[in-house]
Amino acid sequence: MAENHRKDEGFVELGYAKADTDRARRQQAAEVIYGEGKSVEQIAGIVEALLAHGQERVLVTRLDADKAAELAVRKADAFDSHPLRYYDEPRIGIFGDMPPADGKGTVLVIAAGTSDIAVAEEAAVTAEFLGNEVERCYDVGVSGIHRLLARLDVIEKARVIVAVAGLEGALPSVVGGLASAPVIAVPTSVGYGASFGGLAALLGMLNSCASGVSVVNIDNGFGAAFQASLINHLP
Amino acid sequence: MAENHRKDEGFVELGYAKADTDRARRQQAAEVIYGEGKSVEQIAGIVEALLAHGQERVLVTRLDADKAAELAVRKADAFDSHPLRYYDEPRIGIFGDMPPADGKGTVLVIAAGTSDIAVAEEAAVTAEFLGNEVERCYDVGVSGIHRLLARLDVIEKARVIVAVAGLEGALPSVVGGLASAPVIAVPTSVGYGASFGGLAALLGMLNSCASGVSVVNIDNGFGAAFQASLINHLP
Amino acid sequence: MAENHRKDEGFVELGYAKADTDRARRQQAAEVIYGEGKSVEQIAGIVEALLAHGQERVLVTRLDADKAAELAVRKADAFDSHPLRYYDEPRIGIFGDMPPADGKGTVLVIAAGTSDIAVAEEAAVTAEFLGNEVERCYDVGVSGIHRLLARLDVIEKARVIVAVAGLEGALPSVVGGLASAPVIAVPTSVGYGASFGGLAALLGMLNSCASGVSVVNIDNGFGAAFQASLINHLP
Amino acid sequence: MAENHRKDEGFVELGYAKADTDRARRQQAAEVIYGEGKSVEQIAGIVEALLAHGQERVLVTRLDADKAAELAVRKADAFDSHPLRYYDEPRIGIFGDMPPADGKGTVLVIAAGTSDIAVAEEAAVTAEFLGNEVERCYDVGVSGIHRLLARLDVIEKARVIVAVAGLEGALPSVVGGLASAPVIAVPTSVGYGASFGGLAALLGMLNSCASGVSVVNIDNGFGAAFQASLINHLP
Amino acid sequence: MAENHRKDEGFVELGYAKADTDRARRQQAAEVIYGEGKSVEQIAGIVEALLAHGQERVLVTRLDADKAAELAVRKADAFDSHPLRYYDEPRIGIFGDMPPADGKGTVLVIAAGTSDIAVAEEAAVTAEFLGNEVERCYDVGVSGIHRLLARLDVIEKARVIVAVAGLEGALPSVVGGLASAPVIAVPTSVGYGASFGGLAALLGMLNSCASGVSVVNIDNGFGAAFQASLINHLP
Amino acid sequence: MAENHRKDEGFVELGYAKADTDRARRQQAAEVIYGEGKSVEQIAGIVEALLAHGQERVLVTRLDADKAAELAVRKADAFDSHPLRYYDEPRIGIFGDMPPADGKGTVLVIAAGTSDIAVAEEAAVTAEFLGNEVERCYDVGVSGIHRLLARLDVIEKARVIVAVAGLEGALPSVVGGLASAPVIAVPTSVGYGASFGGLAALLGMLNSCASGVSVVNIDNGFGAAFQASLINHLP
Amino acid sequence: MAENHRKDEGFVELGYAKADTDRARRQQAAEVIYGEGKSVEQIAGIVEALLAHGQERVLVTRLDADKAAELAVRKADAFDSHPLRYYDEPRIGIFGDMPPADGKGTVLVIAAGTSDIAVAEEAAVTAEFLGNEVERCYDVGVSGIHRLLARLDVIEKARVIVAVAGLEGALPSVVGGLASAPVIAVPTSVGYGASFGGLAALLGMLNSCASGVSVVNIDNGFGAAFQASLINHLP
Amino acid sequence: MAENHRKDEGFVELGYAKADTDRARRQQAAEVIYGEGKSVEQIAGIVEALLAHGQERVLVTRLDADKAAELAVRKADAFDSHPLRYYDEPRIGIFGDMPPADGKGTVLVIAAGTSDIAVAEEAAVTAEFLGNEVERCYDVGVSGIHRLLARLDVIEKARVIVAVAGLEGALPSVVGGLASAPVIAVPTSVGYGASFGGLAALLGMLNSCASGVSVVNIDNGFGAAFQASLINHLP
Repeated sequence: MAENHRKDEGFVELGYAKADTDRARRQQAAEVIYGEGKSVEQIAGIVEALLAHGQERVLVTRLDADKAAELAVRKADAFDSHPLRYYDEPRIGIFGDMPPADGKGTVLVIAAGTSDIAVAEEAAVTAEFLGNEVERCYDVGVSGIHRLLARLDVIEKARVIVAVAGLEGALPSVVGGLASAPVIAVPTSVGYGASFGGLAALLGMLNSCASGVSVVNIDNGFGAAFQASLINHLP
Repeated sequence: MAENHRKDEGFVELGYAKADTDRARRQQAAEVIYGEGKSVEQIAGIVEALLAHGQERVLVTRLDADKAAELAVRKADAFDSHPLRYYDEPRIGIFGDMPPADGKGTVLVIAAGTSDIAVAEEAAVTAEFLGNEVERCYDVGVSGIHRLLARLDVIEKARVIVAVAGLEGALPSVVGGLASAPVIAVPTSVGYGASFGGLAALLGMLNSCASGVSVVNIDNGFGAAFQASLINHLP
Repeated sequence: MAENHRKDEGFVELGYAKADTDRARRQQAAEVIYGEGKSVEQIAGIVEALLAHGQERVLVTRLDADKAAELAVRKADAFDSHPLRYYDEPRIGIFGDMPPADGKGTVLVIAAGTSDIAVAEEAAVTAEFLGNEVERCYDVGVSGIHRLLARLDVIEKARVIVAVAGLEGALPSVVGGLASAPVIAVPTSVGYGASFGGLAALLGMLNSCASGVSVVNIDNGFGAAFQASLINHLP
Repeated sequence: MAENHRKDEGFVELGYAKADTDRARRQQAAEVIYGEGKSVEQIAGIVEALLAHGQERVLVTRLDADKAAELAVRKADAFDSHPLRYYDEPRIGIFGDMPPADGKGTVLVIAAGTSDIAVAEEAAVTAEFLGNEVERCYDVGVSGIHRLLARLDVIEKARVIVAVAGLEGALPSVVGGLASAPVIAVPTSVGYGASFGGLAALLGMLNSCASGVSVVNIDNGFGAAFQASLINHLP
Repeated sequence: MAENHRKDEGFVELGYAKADTDRARRQQAAEVIYGEGKSVEQIAGIVEALLAHGQERVLVTRLDADKAAELAVRKADAFDSHPLRYYDEPRIGIFGDMPPADGKGTVLVIAAGTSDIAVAEEAAVTAEFLGNEVERCYDVGVSGIHRLLARLDVIEKARVIVAVAGLEGALPSVVGGLASAPVIAVPTSVGYGASFGGLAALLGMLNSCASGVSVVNIDNGFGAAFQASLINHLP
Repeated sequence: MAENHRKDEGFVELGYAKADTDRARRQQAAEVIYGEGKSVEQIAGIVEALLAHGQERVLVTRLDADKAAELAVRKADAFDSHPLRYYDEPRIGIFGDMPPADGKGTVLVIAAGTSDIAVAEEAAVTAEFLGNEVERCYDVGVSGIHRLLARLDVIEKARVIVAVAGLEGALPSVVGGLASAPVIAVPTSVGYGASFGGLAALLGMLNSCASGVSVVNIDNGFGAAFQASLINHLP
Repeated sequence: MAENHRKDEGFVELGYAKADTDRARRQQAAEVIYGEGKSVEQIAGIVEALLAHGQERVLVTRLDADKAAELAVRKADAFDSHPLRYYDEPRIGIFGDMPPADGKGTVLVIAAGTSDIAVAEEAAVTAEFLGNEVERCYDVGVSGIHRLLARLDVIEKARVIVAVAGLEGALPSVVGGLASAPVIAVPTSVGYGASFGGLAALLGMLNSCASGVSVVNIDNGFGAAFQASLINHLP
Repeated sequence: MAENHRKDEGFVELGYAKADTDRARRQQAAEVIYGEGKSVEQIAGIVEALLAHGQERVLVTRLDADKAAELAVRKADAFDSHPLRYYDEPRIGIFGDMPPADGKGTVLVIAAGTSDIAVAEEAAVTAEFLGNEVERCYDVGVSGIHRLLARLDVIEKARVIVAVAGLEGALPSVVGGLASAPVIAVPTSVGYGASFGGLAALLGMLNSCASGVSVVNIDNGFGAAFQASLINHLP
């Protein structure tokens, strides 16, 4: 497979990938790499192409700690101007520095249980990477509603809310009823048995009795944060 | 098919049915008839057998208004000592009088939305038929949590709670967290699209983050009330 | 069931419903009625309670033409100051006048096929009811991509996009890649066979390869428009 | 993430968790920890917070033997007044002593097959932890009905029954017909092929032809025991 | 479409059907017609072809009463030597007389509930049509196990058993444990909610803890009887 | 909705549809209308636009007999040069004459059962509409394999095969093993119970052990014929 | 858990199991042990109890090679009169000798592909264990129908047929059409993607267009052989 | 199991397999081996049988690198005239040389994302093995539509297109609208959460709004290439 790096038409041809260098213009956000199933070489190649094309920072999601270590050590030279910082819990790697928070308000990331924190942190770190001030509020599941009501202030002052929950996924319904901000719900695969890998939470959120709630894929903290950031940066 | 009414072994042989005359002894409750898919003749036959065997009242669930009318009119003579009373919303028919409420406490039937009332009433009327004092609390879905919190008093004083909800089925999780009574959750088929006929609510309730919640079949108000009554009559 | 209209705690007790009079304050939008499965009497009762409580207009979704006709004729007196206007295609009824469009930008409602228009119109009329300027762009499914690309201008200038599609539900992925605005995807039940009532489109949208896309329930044009309006009214 | 242990509002803020110190008051039972997916540090932290708050014993479910060993050894000092006892089969850890059995009757845990014992023991040990006298009756699946009928005496004298079964999950239906006590059914993931991880047993139990049966999540021995204990402690 | 009735190669070409005149030789049973979705003309055409080819009787399953009436009246002449007899409950039509019972033993058709009788009768009448002595035993569901145990004699003396049940489909498991005969289980679509049209019963039967049980399609009384007859006619 | 008929960019804007006048160039086939869910007015409008744009004939699938009658009568004037011919079994309407068969070989449409003929005819008539010579071979299901083997000649001489089957959908596997032509499999919704609306046949075909088989949506005779025609017209 | 070996009521109480010593009488076959999820100690205990009770041989299914080795070595003394023989492919262990074949005819085990042989051998070895003469015919999938037709002789002379297939599971349909013997179909989990762990084959077999086919659970070679043996031993 | 290599009737009997030596005649392609679940010995045996029967090359799919290494080293002698070449990414092994490309045109293999390349390469290498000229076009997912439109030239000049995509599987719909060639769609299991192992992509492709698209099993690059080659070799 030829490796001729064509730099036209808004993408860089790497053979195994066409790095989209036009996305920043189109979507007001830079290219992000989904790390799952990509080799260290492939990830490094795409990051290099993007940095070479002028992008200031690159985020890699679903990045195993092993691959991160290899990227940090073996590829240290290639990225010395944009060293890799690794976030263990959400398995995110970021090349380059975090940007200043230039959104209009706060993105609240709220999570039902301790086990949902990995996904919640994927959302939170992504939102920070995209230039948002982030507020975190964890372990406020609806079976202890007083824990949630104790945080009404942060719910009411958020500009966008990312609500993360596994099991029955009821948190967005309650939050959606309390908040005036749009709520982006993230079902997680936390649970067992009839949770069916997050299906129960997903269906629960899609059927939410609260208005103003939309949903992303199971465990897709990144996707929720991406949309939250778009909303938070609307002029 | 022979119609020889054997009256031994704890049941009456009707050919198309073996009316269980032993259940009152075994389960402290009299036989109940599931009306769906049974003809007027079959229902009348079973009711007659049970009454003849000394049962004081008979409940028929899922009874269409048409069949009820036919039973009330055409079969009036057969049941003059135990006339039929029909409950339109839950589609329940009762031959004979309601018993006194001899349970130890109150059964609270709580429902999330107006559309869930038919199922909730199936539970409420069944519980009354089985000798329970029933408290109703409807339209307290979790997207307007203040409506639910305004009824904390009835939640706290109930001995057993039947919680009915469609859509995402989150009500039992919140109620289960607020109450010290056992909660029997009833998912309803209320919803559309990804509710998949109540599957979303069912899965939500089975995955409830609250402890003390168990679940019955979709739209099975009767079953929830039956178990609630068993609990409420424990010495 | 007692009909004492308590007017405290942010809701009006109707027995069969607790009309939420506090929602306008909490969610910057007035109460909306889901018409499916509610009787004409119930709908009329809730509308009256809301209007009596000072709400300026009421929207009823999933309202059958028959019920609408009955509400318009039999209940004409009750609503003479807020006469009912009925939208046939999306089966929406609105009591009172449309408000001025006070959102910050335009809500684009884009639909893949002619058969998706009913759902798209539910979104469009709801968005107008909630004070948004709405742009419509229909029959731009991805199998004739030139039809979509011919409307790049409206896609690029929208502040929020509601993308409606049945079948494989690919439209939001393509639109999400073209637009910088947040995209709320609405799967429809249009299709047959392995569409499984909209499941195919729903799963497609949840797995969208485009960032910035979130999803609501199948055929839930209302929900998408509600969230779009929240976003469009962010200061 | 700040670790300031706020001790107000009925919970202790640990950052990764809000330990619910108010539950004992609300639900007449102390906080329980779901061990799956929590690190040894997190578990130890929550246990310490709860003990510090005056709770007498703490139960941890789904606790791997490895984590248990680490908690018992490395954290021995922290828990010397409440040493950890580990139950291998149900993977339960208990800090502190078992309480006296103060329920009103007996909780019968009945299991269909040898492979269901792990889940049955989760129920049995949990029930003991919550202050119940427990009777066990295992390997009484319905394909050898004489084994079940030989235990009619324990079925009839139980106050609450937890019925555990995998495969087709028929045990609760037969037991429900024999007993006058409420039956809480626990489907297990025991089986293969069309058992689909316990789905067959779950659906079977939800569709039980016996009245008085409710169901909890697949393999949720804990949840069944929790509700059984609530019922057994009703005054 | 040409209607040239080729009579070679073991089938008769009707254009819309190739009536299999060779089956009696291959399978020791005559051709049977699945009536669903076939017009009166098509059914009549196939029956005529088969009778003309020397078959003594023809069975039509899933035959609506309307079509049966039309076949009996309008086509009376065509079938005067093999008049149609219609069985209302199982919706079966038979052209010609029932054969003598020439199987080696008895086929027991056992059904759990009154609502399962339609399917059970499809099995029973089919078995009779195929030359079997049939014993019926209905309404012996497992929630009243004494009703089943009262019929141990017929269970033990049957040569083959067809066990019909809806809901959780537990009957074959109990019967399979009691009998030494092979058991063919027929799940029915009787039920609601999480029965999912018979799926619960089907999965239950496939996962039966009893050995010696095999399963046919939901509501397929015909198929079970066909195999039962094959077994009962083994030399 | 504005009705300005723009005739640029390869489509005609009808408001409710963008008739794709460019497809003939792109796909060597003219626009086809999916009739389901479209009103008579909408269908007539699109047909008129296409004919006005020079298309010689238009095919409408899933066209109810009622709508066809209305189109034939009320709209007779509009289509006098291209009168409507209606095919009852496959519910297809064609405006204009059938074209000559200009494909390179024969398209064989083969169907397993009599009940599959409606779908098979949708494929056959579509293929004729697209300029193919069509061979039909019906009722050759695999349970009477001699009926299929008797037609080996037509199987071997076909250039493309469309294989239609419901139930277990095994026909394409056997045909795929016998033929050297590509096989396009069409699962049908024929069946009951565990056929789940054609899902069983669909999964069967996707898992075919024969190579050279691809699959279209359930009941999608049109789609299979469309691809078959593309293949048959390859130079 | 007490280990008092009660020897009454037809079973031996082992605490973790109630070994069914009455089954030989009831089902004309001795107890069989499902090895999955049982420890070496548990298996050894049940085998000892059964042998002590006079059973001549014991079969253990789903027995890992590791456990088998441990049973053979560490427990050699306990079983010296009934040494363990291990069958690697079907993972079966047999204590004691194979019995003579005393069935009335031949059980034919027929398998579609090489990958299905493990399941087919589970059926074949089980049938031999239960006293049947077994004929094997493997790799005769329907995509090469000539391979199957070449074995018509063995198909026609079998008394019972066990047909094993993965993928689309079409083999039983073709065999069912060719044979006059009852066919017990075994779907296997062989396949990938839309095979969904054998679901495709299972549904295919349940929807078989051939009469005389019944189905057991996915990969349940044992169950099919058990029923086949019952049939083959009918007098 | 006997190993007598019968060489008649178009197959070679290996006991565990019946190598189909007749397929080349029937399907214009040689036998291919599905490597998954076959031992090195079995694979070697089948390859030897086929080569001995005159086949020029053999392809093995789903061949683990470990097995390939063992075949290459330990079996080197057996295959010295047809040495094994291993393709790492698609896990394909080929014994013998690639044939010349003798198809009539080009097979275009187009893939949506970098993670889909393994499946795309299975298709590409298979197509080359079957004598086709292959064009590759990767990472052209629909969320960056400009990358796809930049390759319109290769799309338009292909004779057959294999379109590979995971996630929502939208690529074939867009390509199908742009191309006049038949499109064979391959869903991949790439994705997470609600992708359900490729189900989302599969359903999306089956419901494609583009005509001329058919679908093969999830990850079945081989099957798509096989059909593509059949089409490309049509005279």
